[in-house]
Amino acid sequence: MSSTPDDDVQTYIRAHRTPFLADLAEWLRIPSVSAEPDRAPDLLRSAEWLAAALKETGFPVAEVWPTKGAPAVFAEWRSDDEDAPTVLVYGHHDVQPAALADGWDGDPFEPVERDGRLYARGAADDKGQVFLHTLGLRAHLAATGRTTPAVHLKFLVEGEEESGSPHFLELIRERADRLACDTAIVSDTGMWAEDTPTVCTGMRGLVDGEVVLHGPDQDIHSGSFGGAVPNPATEAARLVAALHDDDRRVAIPGFYDGVVELTERERRLLAELRFDEAAWLRTAKSHAALGERGHSTLERIWARPTAEVNGIHSGYGGPGGKTIVPSRAEVKFSFRLVAGQDTAAVQRLFTDWVAERLPDGVRHEIRFWGGGTRPCLTPLDHPALRSLVRAMGRAFGQEIRFTREGGSGPAADLQDVLGVPVLFLGISVPSDGWHSVNEKVELDLLFKGVETAAHLWTDLAEDWRAGPWPAAPRPAS
Amino acid sequence: MSSTPDDDVQTYIRAHRTPFLADLAEWLRIPSVSAEPDRAPDLLRSAEWLAAALKETGFPVAEVWPTKGAPAVFAEWRSDDEDAPTVLVYGHHDVQPAALADGWDGDPFEPVERDGRLYARGAADDKGQVFLHTLGLRAHLAATGRTTPAVHLKFLVEGEEESGSPHFLELIRERADRLACDTAIVSDTGMWAEDTPTVCTGMRGLVDGEVVLHGPDQDIHSGSFGGAVPNPATEAARLVAALHDDDRRVAIPGFYDGVVELTERERRLLAELRFDEAAWLRTAKSHAALGERGHSTLERIWARPTAEVNGIHSGYGGPGGKTIVPSRAEVKFSFRLVAGQDTAAVQRLFTDWVAERLPDGVRHEIRFWGGGTRPCLTPLDHPALRSLVRAMGRAFGQEIRFTREGGSGPAADLQDVLGVPVLFLGISVPSDGWHSVNEKVELDLLFKGVETAAHLWTDLAEDWRAGPWPAAPRPAS
Ligand SMILES: [Zn+2]
Ligand SMILES: [Zn+2]
Repeated sequence: MSSTPDDDVQTYIRAHRTPFLADLAEWLRIPSVSAEPDRAPDLLRSAEWLAAALKETGFPVAEVWPTKGAPAVFAEWRSDDEDAPTVLVYGHHDVQPAALADGWDGDPFEPVERDGRLYARGAADDKGQVFLHTLGLRAHLAATGRTTPAVHLKFLVEGEEESGSPHFLELIRERADRLACDTAIVSDTGMWAEDTPTVCTGMRGLVDGEVVLHGPDQDIHSGSFGGAVPNPATEAARLVAALHDDDRRVAIPGFYDGVVELTERERRLLAELRFDEAAWLRTAKSHAALGERGHSTLERIWARPTAEVNGIHSGYGGPGGKTIVPSRAEVKFSFRLVAGQDTAAVQRLFTDWVAERLPDGVRHEIRFWGGGTRPCLTPLDHPALRSLVRAMGRAFGQEIRFTREGGSGPAADLQDVLGVPVLFLGISVPSDGWHSVNEKVELDLLFKGVETAAHLWTDLAEDWRAGPWPAAPRPAS
Repeated sequence: MSSTPDDDVQTYIRAHRTPFLADLAEWLRIPSVSAEPDRAPDLLRSAEWLAAALKETGFPVAEVWPTKGAPAVFAEWRSDDEDAPTVLVYGHHDVQPAALADGWDGDPFEPVERDGRLYARGAADDKGQVFLHTLGLRAHLAATGRTTPAVHLKFLVEGEEESGSPHFLELIRERADRLACDTAIVSDTGMWAEDTPTVCTGMRGLVDGEVVLHGPDQDIHSGSFGGAVPNPATEAARLVAALHDDDRRVAIPGFYDGVVELTERERRLLAELRFDEAAWLRTAKSHAALGERGHSTLERIWARPTAEVNGIHSGYGGPGGKTIVPSRAEVKFSFRLVAGQDTAAVQRLFTDWVAERLPDGVRHEIRFWGGGTRPCLTPLDHPALRSLVRAMGRAFGQEIRFTREGGSGPAADLQDVLGVPVLFLGISVPSDGWHSVNEKVELDLLFKGVETAAHLWTDLAEDWRAGPWPAAPRPAS
């Protein structure tokens, strides 16, 4: 009885499990915290470590790409099959800050394997999910007998994701030639649950910034002047309150123009996910669900645009009271956008809307934090998405379901600059503690991810030959 | 040609001008800053100095009354005319903080006489306006040939007014027997302008406190959870925005119940005051007038109740943005009340109104800073007010007009606890720089105040005998 490719992949992975974990642990020991300026040497060390590891995996090309911030790593391994598609894998090698004093059970930069889990800062976000591709690729070669991958493979692993990827757009614009591909695979997300493997099909976009309102030139006495001059705290509150109507829909005219609504099938698939709202609320540290009327919680966080206030500050905030009319007020806002919405259009709509709503005597400034991040969405019937689902199904032996990501990320930049559909391969689960204490990765799931990666190049190449892919989906549907 | 009482008063004052100013300067040199804990010895020294000065003026009784904070001074001098009314003069001997480094032209506690003004912290607020009564009383005795005042005279000069009079209510409740009187004269306000002598007829009341809203147990990620759980910053804004309707009237049902509206005569007198709105806006450091529709600026600050937000704080307030849903929001609020409104009723209305407006999942707390301060208002036709206007008219030789005070003060406590009408005798002007740098008092006006005080006891005693006073006006009219 001959072994199947799936058996061969599993056999190879089992045989190489221990050195793979040892290597990953070595990488995790490098505290590549991009938010801490004095960690710059560690970020360089981390990038160099990864470049060396990719070379050792077989990549003929593995380079450290400097940026104005932390360096990225680029690697390339062309397939012998010239007509194969080109795939770019995206991840990041920087991590969130972590310290024992934050409440970790052990040194966050000293990986510990316990109860089938690997604990360390970056174990799931994102070193573990990047590194799984090295063993996956070797298993792919071993099981297929190939000497090169079934697709033209590129890697781009940035070093500033946890700091908001401030130089990423510039980097990929400048290096667009070398990054050219047919699809990008983002390895920096998660699945629905330990027992529910899923593929993420899109991320929301983001427009954020601040509005500063100026009233009196200094704080003034509310007994002498209050009630007779505009109060910027009141005006800020009126602005923020007017952002939503009583149905908690965003009330800026035109905000929903072009929004790609969920299809009936998508709503049904979404509703089929086993969703424990009480448990979700516990994760959200929240005590009730509240959002746009007519949509479920999952729809609200994955598929509906939002307007959120991240901070309001005005006037007195110390103990007791102080009877003043404050001089200024500051509102930090963020809009999450979905496919069909344009960042520049939302900035323009909001700018006009604010200007129209303020009374005489209140001067204001709006600042946006850059041009915003575009939403991205890969339709359920896209062939590349079907390949990913197939590879993942082979690894998990289960039906693969669909999720989306409520947050926003550089995936949209890849989609926009490179003009390709973006897929998400993630095996992390909500309990993994991203950005929190005792971050871990479930080893079973990590190796399912390795297995998925081993199949993916074969499946993608095969599906690619079956027919041409549609053009990259554009946010404006 | 025999001299008139007015001439005699003026002659006496001119003759004693120099030692009076020297004594006042000595008092002003004591830095009795109630807000600074290490000034406690200076507050005691200031109280003892005043008690001694009052004894020297002739008061048989002059005592330093300790409180849980800074001491007050009480003095009493009964009239030989047993049937005379009893009058309590109120003022304060503590001052606002002041330092050369704040921008003063000289040491704020080293009084300087220049260009007909006396510069020093407390020159106008309130030592100058308290001390004018000593010379006024001596001139009263000298001009009338009396050996005791024409009224039973009491003085209460507290030491914590600039710190919000935290122990004043307790003090006057405990000492209500000794403070019993027929009217209280507050010597701690000002007039409309140098060339427009006025009498203040009332002060607004105050209810203030904070509302704290609790949403998620900690700040949570707006991409993962935003738009699906309540955001306390948004809810705080919706509360604050709902405080006013589009006419900028306070929108809490019942808030205006009982409000004593201005009479047609009051509106007309008010409109006749020469009011330069552009200049007022400069004083208010504001760039437009805005308030309750249908009322002028002066009506809004003197005679209309208000709801003001003194501070809102929630979420991120640093540089750039942070995509969070904040865990909590804090709103500092203050309501100014006018005659006819009850502090407890407003607290109750607001408490209920807030509770009704918050969605599930947002817990809240309301705290009030004490029971609030009642508004006070003496009707224009009150006989005691007419006496004051007459005395002031004799001193100024001009028509005396009427103002009100937009702020709130211990005057209301005197009115409520002692059950008497409160009159305001003030000669300070807006340019005197209360609570600011280079505080001063206009010496011409200070001596007009001395002259007013010299006539007042005669006029009050005379009018008192003409017929009984109405009962103390109660806020609920
Ligand atoms: Zn990540
Ligand atoms: Zn004062």
